[in-house]
Amino acid sequence: MLQELKSLLNANDRDALEEYIARIQPYDLAEMFMQLDLKDQVRLFADLPISLSAEIMEYMEPDAQYRILNRSSADAASSLLNEMSSDSVVDLLLAIHPHQAEKMMGSLPPDYREKISTLMNFAPDSAGSLATVDYISARNAWTVDQTLQHVRKVGREAEIVSYIYVLDTYGKLIGIISLKDLILAQPETLLEAIMKEDIVTVPAEMDQQEVASILSKYDLYAIPVITQDHRMIGIVTVDDLIDVIHEEATEDIQKLGGSQPLEEPYFKNSIWSLFRKRIGWLLILFVAEAYTGNVLRHYEETLNEVVALSFFIPLLIGTGGNSGTQIVTTLVRALGMGEVKFKDIFKVIRKEIFTGFFLGLCMGTVAFFRAQFLGVGFDIGTVVAITAIFIVIWSSLVAAVLPLVLNQFKVDPAVVSGPFITTLVDGTGLVIYFSMARMILHVG
Amino acid sequence: MLQELKSLLNANDRDALEEYIARIQPYDLAEMFMQLDLKDQVRLFADLPISLSAEIMEYMEPDAQYRILNRSSADAASSLLNEMSSDSVVDLLLAIHPHQAEKMMGSLPPDYREKISTLMNFAPDSAGSLATVDYISARNAWTVDQTLQHVRKVGREAEIVSYIYVLDTYGKLIGIISLKDLILAQPETLLEAIMKEDIVTVPAEMDQQEVASILSKYDLYAIPVITQDHRMIGIVTVDDLIDVIHEEATEDIQKLGGSQPLEEPYFKNSIWSLFRKRIGWLLILFVAEAYTGNVLRHYEETLNEVVALSFFIPLLIGTGGNSGTQIVTTLVRALGMGEVKFKDIFKVIRKEIFTGFFLGLCMGTVAFFRAQFLGVGFDIGTVVAITAIFIVIWSSLVAAVLPLVLNQFKVDPAVVSGPFITTLVDGTGLVIYFSMARMILHVG
Repeated sequence: MLQELKSLLNANDRDALEEYIARIQPYDLAEMFMQLDLKDQVRLFADLPISLSAEIMEYMEPDAQYRILNRSSADAASSLLNEMSSDSVVDLLLAIHPHQAEKMMGSLPPDYREKISTLMNFAPDSAGSLATVDYISARNAWTVDQTLQHVRKVGREAEIVSYIYVLDTYGKLIGIISLKDLILAQPETLLEAIMKEDIVTVPAEMDQQEVASILSKYDLYAIPVITQDHRMIGIVTVDDLIDVIHEEATEDIQKLGGSQPLEEPYFKNSIWSLFRKRIGWLLILFVAEAYTGNVLRHYEETLNEVVALSFFIPLLIGTGGNSGTQIVTTLVRALGMGEVKFKDIFKVIRKEIFTGFFLGLCMGTVAFFRAQFLGVGFDIGTVVAITAIFIVIWSSLVAAVLPLVLNQFKVDPAVVSGPFITTLVDGTGLVIYFSMARMILHVG
Repeated sequence: MLQELKSLLNANDRDALEEYIARIQPYDLAEMFMQLDLKDQVRLFADLPISLSAEIMEYMEPDAQYRILNRSSADAASSLLNEMSSDSVVDLLLAIHPHQAEKMMGSLPPDYREKISTLMNFAPDSAGSLATVDYISARNAWTVDQTLQHVRKVGREAEIVSYIYVLDTYGKLIGIISLKDLILAQPETLLEAIMKEDIVTVPAEMDQQEVASILSKYDLYAIPVITQDHRMIGIVTVDDLIDVIHEEATEDIQKLGGSQPLEEPYFKNSIWSLFRKRIGWLLILFVAEAYTGNVLRHYEETLNEVVALSFFIPLLIGTGGNSGTQIVTTLVRALGMGEVKFKDIFKVIRKEIFTGFFLGLCMGTVAFFRAQFLGVGFDIGTVVAITAIFIVIWSSLVAAVLPLVLNQFKVDPAVVSGPFITTLVDGTGLVIYFSMARMILHVG
């Protein structure tokens, strides 16, 4: 595909080029354009119909957008900026140097510029920062026919026309009507007669993850963002929130893996950036794990007497870590999805302790036979088996309690990663192990 | 809120009840209804406007839907089923006993019944299984005005009216037009003049996760599902795909935690169900970890001579496991999001080996000082430090290669969980450790 585009560009056959481009999705065009020389990119964006150019550009990263706009004529750049949806413009302006951003904003009409600066002031990852002002608004005294005419006039610019938002004279959101209902209604009906007054809205400060969960709960395509006094700021559309859902899941996964989340896709991270995201937790976990050395030195005599005990150290602490990791990942996700709340803590503990008991019984049995197989005798086998049971139950308890408690204290429960819980139960597991050994084997 | 609903129900004031209900979102009504007696539920569903009843019911689980339909009059049940979107009806029919499903299908009009049976035959988690037939179709020779009249006629039934799908006489999908474009166009224009012929479609067999990623790539609200000969089966809407995105992320997280994914929300799983999902991997990992016992017995003499070496076993293998877990979780997610492909394997290895080298240097340095602090002497400290470096590099290599190779062989890379990679590098880490010890300390 790219070859065809390039040869059409070289042939300078504008008609053939336009016809070719008309057959391709804007997203795919964006992917192809990114592989062209900057000169060709600038030329294409200037030549294509402005609405298509803007749509293609919205699929590009801010740095690529800036390179093109910076090389385009002032006129072309200004119309592209005007045509792009306001949330994309905000992303672009926030990604570039403030000085360059100011220069770019100079090319926007004053009232649009003002809206954009408002949007730029919202905290990153808040509902306000995701909002676009390219929605369609109407007044409650308008008729259906008037509103449809209005949609015809401004619809091209809107990011989504599925909903029309009814505002009062102060800009307060008082109703919502879907385009579907508008089309199904009689032309002379007043909007206030058919609009829905019970509207799902979100405040501008709300965290994007919460916005996404509200939108998916109510099966909406867009959600209005409002100020405290109910004035309309803009809308957040479902496509942006899908990106949020992906991002948040990626973050959770990386945190549960014991790493700080990467802010960029994998290959955009340098070795140095990967290093920085990982070293913090590695060091914390190392320090936390270091006390296992003290535990073992404490039991040095026991170990000296029965070296065979050391054979089972990795196996036993590994089993505790595995069982804890299973629980922690399940619970952190369940907390994130709102399936589990702090008030359920005793239900969770009961469930996990019982499950842990049965899992421990299994693991203990297998551990006993494993010990016999290694030829360390009945007594050590018993120690290993009983330790396995207790370690699994213990790690179940810790893994059940920690995420819920942290979540209650507004700490992201995903900091209790697999590596974290493994480290935590390693040392305590050893204490269980050697206490059992001393009791059963009657040694030092 | 629930109290208010209950007292209105008891007061038998139908007008007040209707007014109250009109103010509440269908999703919230569903949540409230679920807490009423079945008798009240049946009564409410029979009394409310049918379109609202159907919408509320779609937010309920299939078992709750069935209980209500089963208790409703044959007429009421049949109109509810007819009004519900076809993907919900399919979910319901697949969730109940085939005998009951057959009985329910008997109440559907013959042509709808046929469509439903087709949908029921698609594999679970395929595009076809998510599809709804409640979309709006039109013919290419229709004018804009004719089409709008058609939308007015059938729009109430449609799940989404944002797109109108243009079919030829054989039911093949030949074009698509958004409601927005329809409204913006001149009434007498023919659809074929303004419809887009380049359509993003998915085959019925495509996995739901792939459908979700295509939809989010192209920022669509719905995507048509077609047969191999391009006939239209139905559409998958964005709200269903958001659920898919959530489910798939949950599955990945649980798999990465070393557990089989739970099919239901946390509290819907019995202790026995949690046990079954977890015991498999715990046993596999136990068996895999068991060989660490052999490794340690192999080095029994070395351990006997220098018991202090055992102090660092949990620390060193823990560090290897942590570093491996960080990489595995990052790469599994990056593979899932399409950021990394098998062809990048050498780029990934290079990146991870270098990052691992620098991380290893840090950890080695810290490990050396930790050893001194524990008073085991310079030599053992050196062994521990060098081992730390090599273990981190080694686990980086294993964690970089495994997910990509598995993915290439069509095995879900998420089976390489944190616990899996930890187990894998535990034993090999011990071999590195004791080899270093023998070399540097000239022992056993």
